Amino acid sequence: MGKNMGPGALSDLRIDGARLVRRLMELGEIGAIPGTDGCARLALTDDDKAGRDLVMSWMRELGLEISIDGIGNAVASMPLDRLGGEPTSTIPVMTGSHIDTVATGGKYDGNLGVLAGLEVIETVMAAIDGGSLSLPRPLAVAWFTDEEGARFPPDMLGSLVYVGGMALEAALDITDRDGASIGNELDRIGYRGAAPSPGPAPHAFVELHIEQGPVLEDAGIRIGAVTGVQGISWTEFTITGWSAHAGTTPMQLRRDPGLVAARINVFARELAERFGGAQVATCGVVSHTPNLVNVVPSKVTMTVDLRNTDETTLQQAEAELLAFVKQAATDEGCTFDHRSLARFEPVEFDERVVALVESTAGSLRHSVQRMPSGAGHDAQMLARVCPTAMVFTPSVNGISHNVTEYTEPADLVAGTDVLLHTMLTLAATEFGPRVVTNDERVEVGT
Amino acid sequence: MGKNMGPGALSDLRIDGARLVRRLMELGEIGAIPGTDGCARLALTDDDKAGRDLVMSWMRELGLEISIDGIGNAVASMPLDRLGGEPTSTIPVMTGSHIDTVATGGKYDGNLGVLAGLEVIETVMAAIDGGSLSLPRPLAVAWFTDEEGARFPPDMLGSLVYVGGMALEAALDITDRDGASIGNELDRIGYRGAAPSPGPAPHAFVELHIEQGPVLEDAGIRIGAVTGVQGISWTEFTITGWSAHAGTTPMQLRRDPGLVAARINVFARELAERFGGAQVATCGVVSHTPNLVNVVPSKVTMTVDLRNTDETTLQQAEAELLAFVKQAATDEGCTFDHRSLARFEPVEFDERVVALVESTAGSLRHSVQRMPSGAGHDAQMLARVCPTAMVFTPSVNGISHNVTEYTEPADLVAGTDVLLHTMLTLAATEFGPRVVTNDERVEVGT
Repeated sequence: MGKNMGPGALSDLRIDGARLVRRLMELGEIGAIPGTDGCARLALTDDDKAGRDLVMSWMRELGLEISIDGIGNAVASMPLDRLGGEPTSTIPVMTGSHIDTVATGGKYDGNLGVLAGLEVIETVMAAIDGGSLSLPRPLAVAWFTDEEGARFPPDMLGSLVYVGGMALEAALDITDRDGASIGNELDRIGYRGAAPSPGPAPHAFVELHIEQGPVLEDAGIRIGAVTGVQGISWTEFTITGWSAHAGTTPMQLRRDPGLVAARINVFARELAERFGGAQVATCGVVSHTPNLVNVVPSKVTMTVDLRNTDETTLQQAEAELLAFVKQAATDEGCTFDHRSLARFEPVEFDERVVALVESTAGSLRHSVQRMPSGAGHDAQMLARVCPTAMVFTPSVNGISHNVTEYTEPADLVAGTDVLLHTMLTLAATEFGPRVVTNDERVEVGT
Repeated sequence: MGKNMGPGALSDLRIDGARLVRRLMELGEIGAIPGTDGCARLALTDDDKAGRDLVMSWMRELGLEISIDGIGNAVASMPLDRLGGEPTSTIPVMTGSHIDTVATGGKYDGNLGVLAGLEVIETVMAAIDGGSLSLPRPLAVAWFTDEEGARFPPDMLGSLVYVGGMALEAALDITDRDGASIGNELDRIGYRGAAPSPGPAPHAFVELHIEQGPVLEDAGIRIGAVTGVQGISWTEFTITGWSAHAGTTPMQLRRDPGLVAARINVFARELAERFGGAQVATCGVVSHTPNLVNVVPSKVTMTVDLRNTDETTLQQAEAELLAFVKQAATDEGCTFDHRSLARFEPVEFDERVVALVESTAGSLRHSVQRMPSGAGHDAQMLARVCPTAMVFTPSVNGISHNVTEYTEPADLVAGTDVLLHTMLTLAATEFGPRVVTNDERVEVGT
């Protein structure tokens, strides 16, 4: 790297922020939700196809080599004859993310990671064509199918298949609520490709993504060097009591599952505060039956979402929660069932890549802090097969999965510049034999 | 009372239990919910009309004088020339209840009070015709329109209009969810009558009703002498926080209205237990928005139903609740709105009538206890205009407003016999000028 170019000149290389933002806005027009800044491109719908077609057209304009695999993941690589010299390896440094969205999504979640990758490659190819840069290996940008899981569970499906975590045939048979299968929908929109699954492991993987939380904004920091992804434990509790008249039933004769659910909610908050650190706990769903003002509920369904970066602590949180639920239900004369809706162990990213993101941000004079990701991302799947980390940019008000999702253009540009220089350095970095540091078991509920 | 009849013979008079149960079952066939023992006769529907027509046919067979008023209340009185002698007053001792039901109702709620009244009158008229009894004033049985309020709010509407608590014209304009008005529906089913509103005050009023709660069954007691009706305070709280990602939002940055709602639920239980006595508190409705497993809710709507037999204590409960909600919302950085959905002050029944019910049950060798009613009843409206009380019979498992609502035939018969002898004694009792003991203010929300 660096033919005909001094260190100063290379470090001055910057992406084209206006071009990046223009493409984000243009992609965000597809599936735009009228009257809002949001968009809806659920996986493998007509709108998803239109988004894929648009991004594919940009990839083709750059002359990238595009492969589509059997689950519809796309990988677009720089041609080996356009690296500015003889490559020392054909294995790319990969970036990427997803372009599907939730039903009430924004323009940034996922889309940024794909279009920033495209922007990095366009910038690098222009520098190579200008004779100021050569690369020892190609860069590549990928999109992964159905990262959101909003139409087809589980989430991160395409990247899970890419790394061999789920068999292609099993994935193709997954259906949405209306019974449409992934395989048929891929055929319908013309995105069932011939590239093999699992796909080839990249040299390294780094993903740019909006934070989707308030931490960076709250701290006044521009770049997050993501150290890993929290382990996730989703449990649904169904608590059954005794439906009774709110006026005629004395307190001592009640079996109120709503009270049990309320105690669980209060306990979950206390547990998260007591554990401290990365522990979070959320009771997102609370549904009373029959949900009438003058009837003690007969049944309450609720969910508890526990996350931690440490698997042992997460297991402890799960155990304490279950013990509490048992006691609270018993105290009220209620019964309960519980089932796991999702369970992912924490993922630790490669320390070398994390440190590189951190130092790259520093050298570009952007404020940076290490942080875990509270949400799941394709990068956690790629981390199984190559050195991996992520770059976060701030989310205004911490909002995501919402039509008001927004990240300042200056932050988008900063994050993409960090991605650029991280990828350039990774291209020149030789990693030793891979060391597996994570327990890579993944369980997915329905 | 008692022409040609010794005290022993009169006290041996009993209703025909088989006839009572047969009529209850026959009325319950109209609007029967297939596959259950329940029935649905929402006010002023075709099924309600069919139920009215059936009961009216029985009233006519007995030769009763029937008047229908402008809100569709029916009053069926013994003809003055069939009292077994010259009456000393034309003002009847009245009983009655309602024959509309909730959408998932049973055969007993309300229906029992009307058909037991009919049964009492048929029994008394047979005794008169047999020459063993004469009455100084007639007995009458009424049904009141839309007691449940399940189709047209508020509940107890017909009796409210009967006693002058709501102007007839205002009541006729009330609409259901589909925009149909009470006036038009009365015309449609042919039950808008010409009798005046408010209606004439009875000499006294006593209503037989199933308890709709577990107190009598739990105590092993057959008859409740109802001392009054609890005051009711329904408040809806809408708590607004900040929708946030369950994984990416640290605990200290959350504004979780679900947690506030949970704390309110726990507080309401603590308050009811601390106040003790007749205080009950119920959080029947808890609705999270958006109610997703991985999203801290943005908004929670919940209801708190507070009831007490003592108005001062009820007001104290309301004040403590509101203060707690304010503090809990503030602690979590949430805001809240609240509105009253219903507010009725407690009603105290006439001590003379309560004592009469109690002594009558005792003389019939039925176990009896005094108790307040936790639910609202037409009798609480009639209590504004005449000496009033109620008779309760046990509800199996305390269940009501449910297709499994059930009361043992022996209890139905016992309650109706108590009603019979209470009404006979009331007919012979002269009350002094009426003393208003209740603050009769009634507020009804939407």
